Amino acid sequence: MNLVEQYKQIRKHSEKICEPLETEDYVVQPVEDVSPPKWHLGHTTWFFETFILIPNAAEYQVFSENYNYVFNSYYETIGNRVIRTDRGNLSRPSVNDVYQYRAYVDEAMERFLQTTISDELLELLILGFNHEQQHQELLLTDIKYILGNNPLFPPYSADWKEESYLATEAKLITINEGVYEIGYDGGDFCFDNELNRHKVYLQEFEVSSELVTNGEYLDFIKDGGYTNFNFWHAEGWDWVLRNQIKAPMYWHLIDGEWCNYTLNGISLIDAKQSVTHISYYEAYAFASWKGMRLPTEFEWEVAAKQLNWGKRWEWTESAYLPYPGFNKAPGAIGEYNGKFMVNQKVLRGASVATPENHSRITYRNFFHPHLRWQFTGIRLAK
Amino acid sequence: MNLVEQYKQIRKHSEKICEPLETEDYVVQPVEDVSPPKWHLGHTTWFFETFILIPNAAEYQVFSENYNYVFNSYYETIGNRVIRTDRGNLSRPSVNDVYQYRAYVDEAMERFLQTTISDELLELLILGFNHEQQHQELLLTDIKYILGNNPLFPPYSADWKEESYLATEAKLITINEGVYEIGYDGGDFCFDNELNRHKVYLQEFEVSSELVTNGEYLDFIKDGGYTNFNFWHAEGWDWVLRNQIKAPMYWHLIDGEWCNYTLNGISLIDAKQSVTHISYYEAYAFASWKGMRLPTEFEWEVAAKQLNWGKRWEWTESAYLPYPGFNKAPGAIGEYNGKFMVNQKVLRGASVATPENHSRITYRNFFHPHLRWQFTGIRLAK
Amino acid sequence: MNLVEQYKQIRKHSEKICEPLETEDYVVQPVEDVSPPKWHLGHTTWFFETFILIPNAAEYQVFSENYNYVFNSYYETIGNRVIRTDRGNLSRPSVNDVYQYRAYVDEAMERFLQTTISDELLELLILGFNHEQQHQELLLTDIKYILGNNPLFPPYSADWKEESYLATEAKLITINEGVYEIGYDGGDFCFDNELNRHKVYLQEFEVSSELVTNGEYLDFIKDGGYTNFNFWHAEGWDWVLRNQIKAPMYWHLIDGEWCNYTLNGISLIDAKQSVTHISYYEAYAFASWKGMRLPTEFEWEVAAKQLNWGKRWEWTESAYLPYPGFNKAPGAIGEYNGKFMVNQKVLRGASVATPENHSRITYRNFFHPHLRWQFTGIRLAK
Amino acid sequence: MNLVEQYKQIRKHSEKICEPLETEDYVVQPVEDVSPPKWHLGHTTWFFETFILIPNAAEYQVFSENYNYVFNSYYETIGNRVIRTDRGNLSRPSVNDVYQYRAYVDEAMERFLQTTISDELLELLILGFNHEQQHQELLLTDIKYILGNNPLFPPYSADWKEESYLATEAKLITINEGVYEIGYDGGDFCFDNELNRHKVYLQEFEVSSELVTNGEYLDFIKDGGYTNFNFWHAEGWDWVLRNQIKAPMYWHLIDGEWCNYTLNGISLIDAKQSVTHISYYEAYAFASWKGMRLPTEFEWEVAAKQLNWGKRWEWTESAYLPYPGFNKAPGAIGEYNGKFMVNQKVLRGASVATPENHSRITYRNFFHPHLRWQFTGIRLAK
Repeated sequence: MNLVEQYKQIRKHSEKICEPLETEDYVVQPVEDVSPPKWHLGHTTWFFETFILIPNAAEYQVFSENYNYVFNSYYETIGNRVIRTDRGNLSRPSVNDVYQYRAYVDEAMERFLQTTISDELLELLILGFNHEQQHQELLLTDIKYILGNNPLFPPYSADWKEESYLATEAKLITINEGVYEIGYDGGDFCFDNELNRHKVYLQEFEVSSELVTNGEYLDFIKDGGYTNFNFWHAEGWDWVLRNQIKAPMYWHLIDGEWCNYTLNGISLIDAKQSVTHISYYEAYAFASWKGMRLPTEFEWEVAAKQLNWGKRWEWTESAYLPYPGFNKAPGAIGEYNGKFMVNQKVLRGASVATPENHSRITYRNFFHPHLRWQFTGIRLAK
Repeated sequence: MNLVEQYKQIRKHSEKICEPLETEDYVVQPVEDVSPPKWHLGHTTWFFETFILIPNAAEYQVFSENYNYVFNSYYETIGNRVIRTDRGNLSRPSVNDVYQYRAYVDEAMERFLQTTISDELLELLILGFNHEQQHQELLLTDIKYILGNNPLFPPYSADWKEESYLATEAKLITINEGVYEIGYDGGDFCFDNELNRHKVYLQEFEVSSELVTNGEYLDFIKDGGYTNFNFWHAEGWDWVLRNQIKAPMYWHLIDGEWCNYTLNGISLIDAKQSVTHISYYEAYAFASWKGMRLPTEFEWEVAAKQLNWGKRWEWTESAYLPYPGFNKAPGAIGEYNGKFMVNQKVLRGASVATPENHSRITYRNFFHPHLRWQFTGIRLAK
Repeated sequence: MNLVEQYKQIRKHSEKICEPLETEDYVVQPVEDVSPPKWHLGHTTWFFETFILIPNAAEYQVFSENYNYVFNSYYETIGNRVIRTDRGNLSRPSVNDVYQYRAYVDEAMERFLQTTISDELLELLILGFNHEQQHQELLLTDIKYILGNNPLFPPYSADWKEESYLATEAKLITINEGVYEIGYDGGDFCFDNELNRHKVYLQEFEVSSELVTNGEYLDFIKDGGYTNFNFWHAEGWDWVLRNQIKAPMYWHLIDGEWCNYTLNGISLIDAKQSVTHISYYEAYAFASWKGMRLPTEFEWEVAAKQLNWGKRWEWTESAYLPYPGFNKAPGAIGEYNGKFMVNQKVLRGASVATPENHSRITYRNFFHPHLRWQFTGIRLAK
Repeated sequence: MNLVEQYKQIRKHSEKICEPLETEDYVVQPVEDVSPPKWHLGHTTWFFETFILIPNAAEYQVFSENYNYVFNSYYETIGNRVIRTDRGNLSRPSVNDVYQYRAYVDEAMERFLQTTISDELLELLILGFNHEQQHQELLLTDIKYILGNNPLFPPYSADWKEESYLATEAKLITINEGVYEIGYDGGDFCFDNELNRHKVYLQEFEVSSELVTNGEYLDFIKDGGYTNFNFWHAEGWDWVLRNQIKAPMYWHLIDGEWCNYTLNGISLIDAKQSVTHISYYEAYAFASWKGMRLPTEFEWEVAAKQLNWGKRWEWTESAYLPYPGFNKAPGAIGEYNGKFMVNQKVLRGASVATPENHSRITYRNFFHPHLRWQFTGIRLAK
């Protein structure tokens, strides 16, 4: 597929995700971490405008001078921006304005992509594609949050299935101790945080071939998992008490039955599906209760080919840290990954919301340990 | 005008206020005090549905069971409700849904109003009209906040003029000491907080015929009004420091010139217009700086016929307290006024946003002393 | 009594209040409103040093340059100061240092008071005496808070009795409507907030001769007073829910029996004693439950001679506002009262902690409506 | 040395640290992380009473039933406790009471230690010794915080020297890539978090033989280190802005010269001494500015024998995580380390406040990345 086609396809997919929305759904930001869908649509567009068109497309006219202030996410290099908690306070630019902004930038990009693109620029362009794909996942999880926390519980769409069933009976896979290679070594795109490829020494370990199910998690709840501090980190326990956590996000006890909100609306829990929307604290507590633990990201990467993975982001025991030889790029692009490498945990795998072609065995996702609006899940090791 | 016509006219006016809005403008709640316009439209409708139709219109079918939860404001008697800070997190019911809700209730109300209405019910109905008019004022001030705090500063409408000029040169009017009667004694509607009519003793005082202008307020700013604690209450001074207040709300120093945002957009300050969007703390500090004071609400009411008033709500020195013999109604309607009678200041007059026929000399408006998104102003006394 | 004797007697009384304390009790500040006893001892000393000695005693040498920073309470005119919430973080100056500071200033003051004192200075001096007496009341209530919130509940002293019994059966006293004079008009000291004496018009009212007892308050609790929003202001109800208030401060339900901590330690509630340590919100809710109300400060002052008052500060319905013609003094002394005249309620009477000779019928005490560590009580009116 | 002697020596050392204090210094808690010295003295005593005497010494009588509530730190197994932020609100038990508590428990312990001690109990006892030593370090850093944040800046003692000079010129030491063994394997005491000893693979790296000095750090400040976001983690940069950080803790710019508070009082910065009281965020930013990085804890442990270490705790790049095979003990003792293994960074080495015999190459200290009241320092690697 040529660059223009690839660009169009990725850009169109973001808009397709928003098709089932009402205009109002594009606007709200119920919590800081959940951005309004129109912000995602604008921000990904701003990325191409700011990093590709403005510095490289000679005759390009900026769509609106104010949009840099509105759609910059966290790039300090690029100047001031709407503070993150205020995104949901902005009724303008309207959804219509944002779609016009997209069309305007797309038209300029498609023209620009027919010119000769240097290798360096190509790299940046591919980063822009991957950036938009990351926001496609966020779009879907943010939409789920917006609708799933509305007292009317409107379904998003019947077409999206969240299911993630066991392929087979779960079994423990044994990996021998030894030196293994970790990190990306293919010839295609990877993020800077997947480099350098380097050696690690792993002790012998066992890891489950399958994810933990809703049924198993329900046993944890019924066994008092949320009321026994012994299973929890001190910070996790504080989090449980302060927020009165009693079940995964989107679970509701209705007339004595556990139900959960999915993109299709509210329904009874399916015991065989993989549990999702749990924090790292909960994943850790569940593993403690089982007398097991979470795998490290290195164990996960080494075992990955033997695992059934791909519909849930799997919390690992690893903190998000630079690999040996990690180097951040100069300028704004260097703010992409490195500056988040503290106080976050690595997740491996991919979720039902991850765009096609946007997952690989070396991919390192990361979130703070208390967050659970992503499609997170649990795999056990020991 | 008959009841049906009166009902229709008031209801239509709320919708007219919203005509210039984009759908997105109906949804956001940038601060707790500012409710989304669609919430106002729904809440005023809910008032008629809950207090008139459900208890009295035999065959009335509730539009949606969930709307009570969404559109109850603060009536504890009526059950649980969306917490106030969450109103801006709700993308649903959509703006369209809310207009359908209005049409549905209006149709039922118009039918119901053609039946025989008891005197007691008539009283409640008139309360509902006045309630909707109060929300019309809030609609406009909330819309101003939403647009005026957007970095793009979109104008609301060229048709709305905020101007409030001096009628004549300001002069001091002297009122003799003596016993005066305060409170409503007409035969039409008034709120419970305007009763009982009772006597007060006033010492001789002087009060300005006119409101303080932007030009006079600018002198206060230039003379260091916001940097000299001597003019302020201790709590006012804390508020200035904590919020780094340097001018009235909506004022911006652009290229060395003071501008302000009005419903028509951003433009230079008009020195002759009455200053507006100031807190009680600022009104008090300005008066201290002038060596004067604010009138009490009783002084205001006694002098009102000799004053030029009506385009700004005027902060008074009076705390919002019950009049002698004040009695709250039983049930939910009793929650209307009495439960707010602590820590608020009385404002008298009316503003450019007050609906026609919704002001009178005995009207008692009230807000917390730090709030300034209403069209508030200053009148001096001594 | 001559000035020197009066000075010595007042100063000694502050130290006598602290006699039963351990050194550690002088240091802590468990909540913002409660200052460490050593701070009170230092601050009252600083008042005499700063306002009397430094400007007037020619050869006076400041005890320590740093103490102005440590012991200034809220006088902006006098410069920077330790922020109020930090008073309990200061282990130095030590208790010993503070007593040395007192001795040093006392010695200088006693010498100074033997010189000729101008009338103006005399006025300031008398203010200093009254200021120290106000802090004597705070010393005792702050000590009670410090000991009464310690898990060991140490008694303060067997000598202090908190009792406040009914003199006689409570009866309702009727006061006729008419014009009355309010405010101080004696020839001795009064605070600026008791002036000017002025006329008010009161409607006919009835007021109880006695305060509400623990027994009556217990009936309110048993009747669900703390669980029925109807009795409360909206802000009061929020306060109840947020702080899970279920009884007056210092009350504890131990093995099914209501006990309370007094300066003598923990013991069973005495049903006949006047209830104390309640907020304005609770006083108002109790009155609502009774179908009555609190008196205004003007009603209280007019009825005072016929009331049994003097062991509890009585919440009134009045907001703390300036009297007609109120004028604050120039300079730091002008910061004494006026700048607090917003968002507070007036209390009338006197408490068991009020120093002798520090109460009068025109005295206006004031606190925020949620506070209850003072010896507050309830008198009903209608 | 026999057990009794060892016990007495360790216990006496805690009291020796407190010798220079005034009674008041034992009481205050200026920030949550800094406990009152009397709390440390009581808590370490409570540890021996609760875990050794009560379960094992048949005739032991508890000193006071209430002390468990007062002196439990974070052991959920052992029941309720004073919340951590309230420790500074307790004036009782008095300092005297706490010393009596110590004497009482010491006497019982010394008697008990002359009986036959099982191996299991011996292990617990040695943990108690190490626990008290950890609190000795905290005692000193907490005292420094209490005195160093007092506006009078009282010195602690002339006897304690904080100096930590370069042994020699700093040079880079190269360590070859390969598999290394990490973790404790001696026959004496170690904490559970130092186990299991296991293999890691390290890439070749260089590490400085010496710590970063005040002089080098001053260059970072002068070069705009605190004003350039590029050097910082996103969370570190937020921390700098929110807290207006401009230099290490205890540094003050006085008349244009950088001074710092040490245990000996305030004096000019010594450029040759190792910088201390910096957060992980600052250590990371400094390293970025130098174009280097911090070592991992594994790199540190492998290189340790060639490093000049021991007067500063050295921030590493490693997150505090369990070693392979980590197992927490059952019961309260199992709460010692494991439950803190999230969101903290490992520090290696030892500081001037670390008790003798309480440091070793495998020791893992840990703190949250923003904290800086410990004697922390920086070593560079690449």
